Amino acid sequence: MSQLQQMGQAARKASFALLNLGRSDKDALLAKIIEGIAASEAEILAANAQDLEDAKAAGLDAAMLDRLLLTPERLAAICADIETVRGLADPVGEELESKLLDNGMRLSRRRIPLGVLGVIYEARPNVTIDVAVLALKTGNAAILRGGKETRRSNLALVAVIHRALEQQGLPQAAISLIDNPDRGLVTELLKLDRYVDMIIPRGGAGLHQLCKEQATIPVITGGIGICHLYVDKSANLERAVDVIENAKVQRPTVCNALDTLLVNQSVADTLLPQLQRRLSEQVRLLGCERTRAIIEVEAAGEGDFDREWLSLTLGIKVVDDVDGAIDHIRTHSSDHSESILTEELATAHYFAASINSAAVYINASTRFTDGSQFGLGAEVAVSTQKLHARGPMGLEALTTYKWLGVGDYHIRG
Amino acid sequence: MSQLQQMGQAARKASFALLNLGRSDKDALLAKIIEGIAASEAEILAANAQDLEDAKAAGLDAAMLDRLLLTPERLAAICADIETVRGLADPVGEELESKLLDNGMRLSRRRIPLGVLGVIYEARPNVTIDVAVLALKTGNAAILRGGKETRRSNLALVAVIHRALEQQGLPQAAISLIDNPDRGLVTELLKLDRYVDMIIPRGGAGLHQLCKEQATIPVITGGIGICHLYVDKSANLERAVDVIENAKVQRPTVCNALDTLLVNQSVADTLLPQLQRRLSEQVRLLGCERTRAIIEVEAAGEGDFDREWLSLTLGIKVVDDVDGAIDHIRTHSSDHSESILTEELATAHYFAASINSAAVYINASTRFTDGSQFGLGAEVAVSTQKLHARGPMGLEALTTYKWLGVGDYHIRG
Repeated sequence: MSQLQQMGQAARKASFALLNLGRSDKDALLAKIIEGIAASEAEILAANAQDLEDAKAAGLDAAMLDRLLLTPERLAAICADIETVRGLADPVGEELESKLLDNGMRLSRRRIPLGVLGVIYEARPNVTIDVAVLALKTGNAAILRGGKETRRSNLALVAVIHRALEQQGLPQAAISLIDNPDRGLVTELLKLDRYVDMIIPRGGAGLHQLCKEQATIPVITGGIGICHLYVDKSANLERAVDVIENAKVQRPTVCNALDTLLVNQSVADTLLPQLQRRLSEQVRLLGCERTRAIIEVEAAGEGDFDREWLSLTLGIKVVDDVDGAIDHIRTHSSDHSESILTEELATAHYFAASINSAAVYINASTRFTDGSQFGLGAEVAVSTQKLHARGPMGLEALTTYKWLGVGDYHIRG
Repeated sequence: MSQLQQMGQAARKASFALLNLGRSDKDALLAKIIEGIAASEAEILAANAQDLEDAKAAGLDAAMLDRLLLTPERLAAICADIETVRGLADPVGEELESKLLDNGMRLSRRRIPLGVLGVIYEARPNVTIDVAVLALKTGNAAILRGGKETRRSNLALVAVIHRALEQQGLPQAAISLIDNPDRGLVTELLKLDRYVDMIIPRGGAGLHQLCKEQATIPVITGGIGICHLYVDKSANLERAVDVIENAKVQRPTVCNALDTLLVNQSVADTLLPQLQRRLSEQVRLLGCERTRAIIEVEAAGEGDFDREWLSLTLGIKVVDDVDGAIDHIRTHSSDHSESILTEELATAHYFAASINSAAVYINASTRFTDGSQFGLGAEVAVSTQKLHARGPMGLEALTTYKWLGVGDYHIRG
């Protein structure tokens, strides 16, 4: 049995110990983790400083270094987030339905933890705590595989979690960290279907593709947002410019930021110059030919409408009508978030009924697709696939259900 | 673009035409299929007779020939099943939740079709109609890949569906049949993630394993049931024998039939001889050593407690107590159906809380795990995985949801 298989087996066993914890037990565990982070702040920051030094020496860019960095303020923010999760209701144990069958047997559906989660993520030490806390709050064990650049930080943070588990009389194997940079272990983890129930990749398109191709365990794919906003002929153009600016500029590096603007031909002449005045200083605009007949912008090249920009770039395309917008979205969308700006009820409903992305908006910015905006309290990931969970995934997405039949020595006739 | 990619693209396009059909449109389509089967009975039976002739020549066994066979009575039964599906409520369009966010935006979750299903199944022509009808009722397109032994029967049945689609003004590509025995096409279908949203394998363990390993599309695995029944020390032993017999004998070839009986040591001396008297004429009993110290049966060999028997064989193991039963189930179960027979409330609840199989029973036969028994009206498959759907899957399991946000040019602050 390989080391990873042993880890999987231990995680599975630990998951049974978490199965029937009540909310107060789980919240007490989370409180111990908060205490532990405060008590071990010096060790955590020292480990992180070493990670940061190595990362600088390895030539990582400023954005990556920033993601890697922990400070007393960031640790305090992490603890505040744990406190928020503590305050959330526990979905486990909920009875989803209960009915008396004709034969007198009572049949219920009850929400239970998934079991063991496998989470693969990049060099962000906060994800280590984030994922562990969401897993434990929902009674799941987890096997974590973080970026090698945060190795020491992750070890220090997992040590805190292990102490908290021990203090509460729970097995440390509930949260395991794969502390080995061998990439072959990722592939092995993806095939550990005997012990792991769900894989959550938190990273870029490459990681999601690897998981889809290699995993024998169900994978939550998502996080890639090629997001569209269509300005209909009936839209209020002044307000439209505000929404477009918000969707593109407010936080351009995230998956729900706007990538492609679709403009109804009949308002393009008016809207596009206004938009250019508002955005051109900060946003790089790439237009289709019809756009470039109205405003002077760079030409959108082959493939530019299939890109998630994650930066201050915006593709613009003029379309004939709402059907043109729907066709474009169906061809180019990653099923994340799309919006229509319109004043016509029929057009709004037609767009909403025709587009099946995880989140569809009428007269709103695409930036709202987010666990906290949706009132879920926490966000495990944003799913763009269609099974299990769609869009922002809260605590419930870390649970499943079982059927429970209670009879009186019932036999099937 | 390969032929299968073209089929996928056409299926995806067809799925948009099905998206917003109301229940009456879909039920009218199903009525046309019923009419079509009646009108084409002669052609269907002739095609089936040819399939049967070839299958006999190829030396298929009697059970396979029987599964392949269509008769006027079986076609009538298929039509009756379609009528049942027509009578079911349409889950599509249901609003699962709707709330007003603090910022005044209304956020709803609405049930929508999955899109395109890929279904891979063995030589059972009834599955062709069954799957197509469930897909269409829920507004999904489907790509079907049936066993090569039923090629002509499937072509005749799909021709009926195509005529019905055409009569209703719907694209024939809504239901496509891969009419090519090349096994490479199965692998290609499993990776068609651009067009197909979910893979449903309906077949044996080998097919499920292939799908898990090869698919880049989410797969519903299931259908394999290594089912357990534990007789607690407090059980009514006379009634227990009835339940055990029912679970094992009533229909031994299906996934919810009993495979392993676990017996509390304190009642083994009484129960096992009674059971042997009742079952030994029809059931082959395989026992652990402690069992064989009480009744004379064959020894259960290595791996016998990890087998789904699908036949009149029953493994028997004596365990110390309920924890022994739970340990055994956690190690050997396929997460399908498990049962406890007990009169003690605490033991019943402890067992139900400790076992996380798709269906857990207190004082009932495992044979109840079934869409019709659960009142779902139809059964797409029985899932033993934890994501999306568990246990018997009804129409809802062929749907997903989208989030719909309706604002007034809302921007995120």
